Amino acid sequence: MGDPTKDPVALPELAAIRAAQARIAPHVHRTPVLTSRSLDAMAGARLWFKCENLQKVGAFKARGACNAVFGLPADIAARGVVTHSSGNHGAALAYAARARGIPAHVVMPEDAPKIKVANVEGFGAHVHFCAPTLPARVETCATVARTTGATLVHPYDDVAVIAGQGTAVLELLDEVPDLDIVVAPVGGGGLLAGTAIAAKGVRPDIVVLGAEPAGADDAARSLAAGTVQPMAHPHTIADGLRATLSERTLRALRLHVAAIGTCSEEAIVAAMRATWERMKLVIEPSSAVPLAAIIEGALDVRGRSVGIIVTGGNVDLDRLPWQR
Amino acid sequence: MGDPTKDPVALPELAAIRAAQARIAPHVHRTPVLTSRSLDAMAGARLWFKCENLQKVGAFKARGACNAVFGLPADIAARGVVTHSSGNHGAALAYAARARGIPAHVVMPEDAPKIKVANVEGFGAHVHFCAPTLPARVETCATVARTTGATLVHPYDDVAVIAGQGTAVLELLDEVPDLDIVVAPVGGGGLLAGTAIAAKGVRPDIVVLGAEPAGADDAARSLAAGTVQPMAHPHTIADGLRATLSERTLRALRLHVAAIGTCSEEAIVAAMRATWERMKLVIEPSSAVPLAAIIEGALDVRGRSVGIIVTGGNVDLDRLPWQR
Repeated sequence: MGDPTKDPVALPELAAIRAAQARIAPHVHRTPVLTSRSLDAMAGARLWFKCENLQKVGAFKARGACNAVFGLPADIAARGVVTHSSGNHGAALAYAARARGIPAHVVMPEDAPKIKVANVEGFGAHVHFCAPTLPARVETCATVARTTGATLVHPYDDVAVIAGQGTAVLELLDEVPDLDIVVAPVGGGGLLAGTAIAAKGVRPDIVVLGAEPAGADDAARSLAAGTVQPMAHPHTIADGLRATLSERTLRALRLHVAAIGTCSEEAIVAAMRATWERMKLVIEPSSAVPLAAIIEGALDVRGRSVGIIVTGGNVDLDRLPWQR
Repeated sequence: MGDPTKDPVALPELAAIRAAQARIAPHVHRTPVLTSRSLDAMAGARLWFKCENLQKVGAFKARGACNAVFGLPADIAARGVVTHSSGNHGAALAYAARARGIPAHVVMPEDAPKIKVANVEGFGAHVHFCAPTLPARVETCATVARTTGATLVHPYDDVAVIAGQGTAVLELLDEVPDLDIVVAPVGGGGLLAGTAIAAKGVRPDIVVLGAEPAGADDAARSLAAGTVQPMAHPHTIADGLRATLSERTLRALRLHVAAIGTCSEEAIVAAMRATWERMKLVIEPSSAVPLAAIIEGALDVRGRSVGIIVTGGNVDLDRLPWQR
């Protein structure tokens, strides 16, 4: 596969995900796996929720960021890391950099939720605001990298990040070895790629599914077309899932993901609220997307044992979607 | 000690709490123990949260109710159980009765939060509404017991219920054996009594503390006076803590509890919100009282390793206290 940092479609193998698990263990929580008979009844299936909302920085992103940061050689790491992120990856990179004692630079759109900005700044990172467009983010990020010598850690188009995200499902399968199906939400595809590689590596017979908002269904369309289908204007409350697949993450999905189901905005809010009410877990809208797709019937998991990666819990408690 | 059902100050011993643990194990969750560096920093201590908000029915009350219901002889159990409750104990008794396949009758005040009424009805219990006064509840409860033959299961003035509530701290000490201190909120005192008996039984050198709202400080005053100090008009958002100690629970507190700290309403709301934001846990106001008392300085735990029983997560998501 050559140097994975050069090959634009290189992916981690199971061994790299296992190595990531050992590398990040001192810096991340082993999150609990929780169940709810109420949600089982709504889904018509047995659901096992891997609670990455209870992870460091409130999201699975701590895994990928820690693997990327702690995998850097010391001389490169010392110059710091930089990323552009709508929030959780930025906070995660800031957390990981602080844990290693190196600088972090985070480029964020001006309209990012304030709790996410506060998270990043709370970890001591330098925040660089830019216009809320992808070109602006990329350009600002490149400028910071050039002037500081920091290493870019992309939110998902990165072999080490994908390997880190794959560690959550390893823990889940360790606790619930006989899952029939595992479902993860898909935005840029880093979590779903890592989850799929890890799950199929450990359990070749498992079915890996993705879930995304109908208003940001580029992954479903890309998987159907076989090539990345860009999406100029995603429209969804699930702000963590507005990104587009890369060639790299699409390749992993084509290799290992059986289907991607979509869901309505109404279903996302209802599934989010049901999770708060029934499971007493604060989850962000993106985290509710797999349950929403199951309840709406876009993913048929009836009667099966289903693992769901609950991706994060960073929400603005002053602006809850059922109160708008 | 004689027949504990007759002796008004009988208490369970550690052996009864261990027996309760085995009896209820098939019917309750072993809840996770979670930590948060952010809340540790706010408290100046190392905090271990035993998450009973993730328990069946969303509250530790499932433990006491299951122990009471499954401890009844078959012929008595068949006639059902009845209680008066502001909510969580009612739901817990309904849950336990359904698990055993017997009728449950729950007397609730007309102004109980709708999520708690829905919980109780969702478990198939018969709800009997009454005026929101203690005499009305007691009278309605007695009438139901007389007409149906159901056994009264008091929310806290009951040996089996206290034994069940004490099982949470057994699990906590199993996972974190070297705690210096354990803190539980106190309303009627069933949880704190069971927690104190269990914790001191296992670890005689542990310090057991209580916490309650300043606006419902009957337990602190009762402990100081040595006799139950009734409180006609408790005023607090922590609706689970408005009850008054019984002779029985006061006796346990006098034997085993070192101190009870109080806290302001503002501190309760702030601690509740901090727990939602930092730990991603939906907790009800009562659950935030120990953290509030610690942060306000009423309980001095600085530099120590502190277990906190997080009592429940049943809140009305349409009426959050920071939005009123």
